[in-house]
Amino acid sequence: MKITALAGGVGASKLLLGLTRAMDPRDLTVIVNTGDDIVLHGLYICPDLDIVTYTLAGSVNPQTGWGLAGDTFHTLKALARYAGEQWFHLGDRDLATHIHRTDLLWRGQPLAQVTDGIRREWGVASRILPMCEHPVPTTLLTNLGELHFQEYLVQHRAEPSILDIRFEGVESARPAPGVLEALREADGILICPSNPLISIGPILAVPGVREAIWERRDRCVAVSPLVGGKSLKGPSDKMLAECLIEPTSCGVALLYEDVASVLVIDPSDSPLCPDIIERGMRPVLLPSIMHTDADKERLARGVLSLFDELNAARA
Amino acid sequence: MKITALAGGVGASKLLLGLTRAMDPRDLTVIVNTGDDIVLHGLYICPDLDIVTYTLAGSVNPQTGWGLAGDTFHTLKALARYAGEQWFHLGDRDLATHIHRTDLLWRGQPLAQVTDGIRREWGVASRILPMCEHPVPTTLLTNLGELHFQEYLVQHRAEPSILDIRFEGVESARPAPGVLEALREADGILICPSNPLISIGPILAVPGVREAIWERRDRCVAVSPLVGGKSLKGPSDKMLAECLIEPTSCGVALLYEDVASVLVIDPSDSPLCPDIIERGMRPVLLPSIMHTDADKERLARGVLSLFDELNAARA
Repeated sequence: MKITALAGGVGASKLLLGLTRAMDPRDLTVIVNTGDDIVLHGLYICPDLDIVTYTLAGSVNPQTGWGLAGDTFHTLKALARYAGEQWFHLGDRDLATHIHRTDLLWRGQPLAQVTDGIRREWGVASRILPMCEHPVPTTLLTNLGELHFQEYLVQHRAEPSILDIRFEGVESARPAPGVLEALREADGILICPSNPLISIGPILAVPGVREAIWERRDRCVAVSPLVGGKSLKGPSDKMLAECLIEPTSCGVALLYEDVASVLVIDPSDSPLCPDIIERGMRPVLLPSIMHTDADKERLARGVLSLFDELNAARA
Repeated sequence: MKITALAGGVGASKLLLGLTRAMDPRDLTVIVNTGDDIVLHGLYICPDLDIVTYTLAGSVNPQTGWGLAGDTFHTLKALARYAGEQWFHLGDRDLATHIHRTDLLWRGQPLAQVTDGIRREWGVASRILPMCEHPVPTTLLTNLGELHFQEYLVQHRAEPSILDIRFEGVESARPAPGVLEALREADGILICPSNPLISIGPILAVPGVREAIWERRDRCVAVSPLVGGKSLKGPSDKMLAECLIEPTSCGVALLYEDVASVLVIDPSDSPLCPDIIERGMRPVLLPSIMHTDADKERLARGVLSLFDELNAARA
C-alpha cells in the first residue's frame, strides 16, 4: 500500500516516524511544506524538510523536535560578532545541511533533487518532496506589521495577533516534480497533524494540489492537530482563533472538508463528532497524543487500518 | 609615519603583528593577496585576508598560523556526509566569517567594504585592503595538470612540480579602492616576507600596482622570506627553484629589483650581499626568523628604522 502524506514539521514527523515503523518506509512519500523556508546569512533554510529528514533518520534532537541531537552552536555564536544576537538557532552540524543545500541551489540543482540527495545521505528510505521548488514565503500580517512566518514563530514566539496570512507568489508556483504523481498513485493520502493554516495550508494552496486530493477525497484521511481544543505543538489553536476559525477539531474539519473524507480526532474530542459528520466527514477516534515511539506507531497503525478499510470499501 | 605593506598570509602576518606593536597601528595599511581565494561549498574564502585579520586581532591559531585559536570542526565533519572528506580545513568559528562574507558579497557589497567591516568587528586598528575586488585565482600548471593554488598547497601538499603560474584574469583586474592611494601616500612601503611568486606576485600583477611602487622605489623595503636558501614557511624555496629562480635572497632580489631599493636578509645570508648590490638594491642584515612575539617586534623595529633612514636621506 502506497501512502502519500502532507506534512509540516514537528507534529507531522512524529506520525511519519510511526508510519515508517508500521509499513515499508519505501512505500511512503512525504510532501513537505516549504512556506516556512527562509534565507538567513545567505543560507537557504528549509525547516520542515529538515525536521522530517532528521526525524526519519533517527537523528532529530528529541528535546526540541527540530535540529540534530547533540549539536553544538559555535558557528552561530561566532556569527553574532558580525550580525548580532541570532534569533534563529542553527547548530554546527545542522549548518552543514544548509551550506550544502545552498551550494547546490546556486549551482542550479532544483530543490527537489537537492532534497532527495540529502534524505539519501541520511539513509532515509521514504521519499521526501518539497511541495514546490520556488520560494513561497508565508507572510503574516500582524499587529506588529508584516512578518515572515519564522519571524512570527521564533523571533516573536507566536505572540503577535494575526490579521491575515499570505503565501507569497503561490498563484504562480508549480508542484515539485513527483508531487501530483505521488497523490494520483497513492492508495492512501494522509494529512498529518500539522498546523492547518501555515503547514498544510501552503501545500494545498500550490495550484493543482488541492484539486488532485479533492479527486481522491475518498482515500484521504486527515489527523487533527488539536486535542481538547489545544494544539499539542505550536500555535495552531491561537492562530485558528485569530483567523476566526473555531480552534477545535470541528474548525479543522471546516478547513479540510473538501479534501478529506475521514478526520482522526482524539477521544477527548468525541463531543465534536456530530459537527464533523455535518461537514460530510467521518470522525474516527484515535488517541492522538504522541509522547513515546510506541504512541507514534500505534497512531500510525490506526491510520493504516483506516486506509485498509477505505480501500476495501472501494473494492 | 604611514606604512603600507604588501602581504600574503602566515609569514607576513608575523611581521605585521610586530609592526602594530612598534608603531601606531592606525598608520598601517595592509594590501593583501587575494589570488589564493577559493569558493568551497559555495562559501567565498579569503585565506590571506583572514590570516592577517585574525593575527592582528590576536586570535589566530598559534600552532598553524591560520584559522582561529581553539576552533572546533563540527560543521566540516558534518559536511563530509554530503561532500566526502574535506581537504580544506574550516573551523566552526572561522566558518562564521566565510558565511558572513559570502552573504554580504551576494547582497552586492564589494569585497573591500566587506573586508573592512570584518577587521573592524575584530577590533583591528590597521586598515586591511584586498589587492582587488574581483577574483583573480592563482592557477598552477603542474605535472598533475592545472591546479588552483589551494589545491596545490593544501590538497597536494605543494608536492607537484610547477611548470607555470597564472593569475587568471589579472590583466582586467583593478586595484581595490584605497590601494593606489595607500601606496601614493605611504612614507614607507613594505614588501612582507611572503612567497614572492604567489603571494606578492599577484599583488604586483594587478595593473597599476607595480607602477605605483616603482615610482616610490626609494621608500620601498622588501624582506626576504628565505633564510639560508630555505623558506621559513610554505614552499617558496621549492617553487622558486622550479621556476628557475635561485631559491636565495639573491633570487628574491631579482624579482623585486624594480620595486624595492632595500632588501632585508637574514645575517646567515650575508655572503649573498654582493649579488644583491649588483641588482641595484641595498642589502640590510636583520635577523628574520620570527618565532616569538619579541622576534616579530624586533624585526619590525629594524624595518621602521630603515624607513626613518630612507626618509631622512630624501629630506
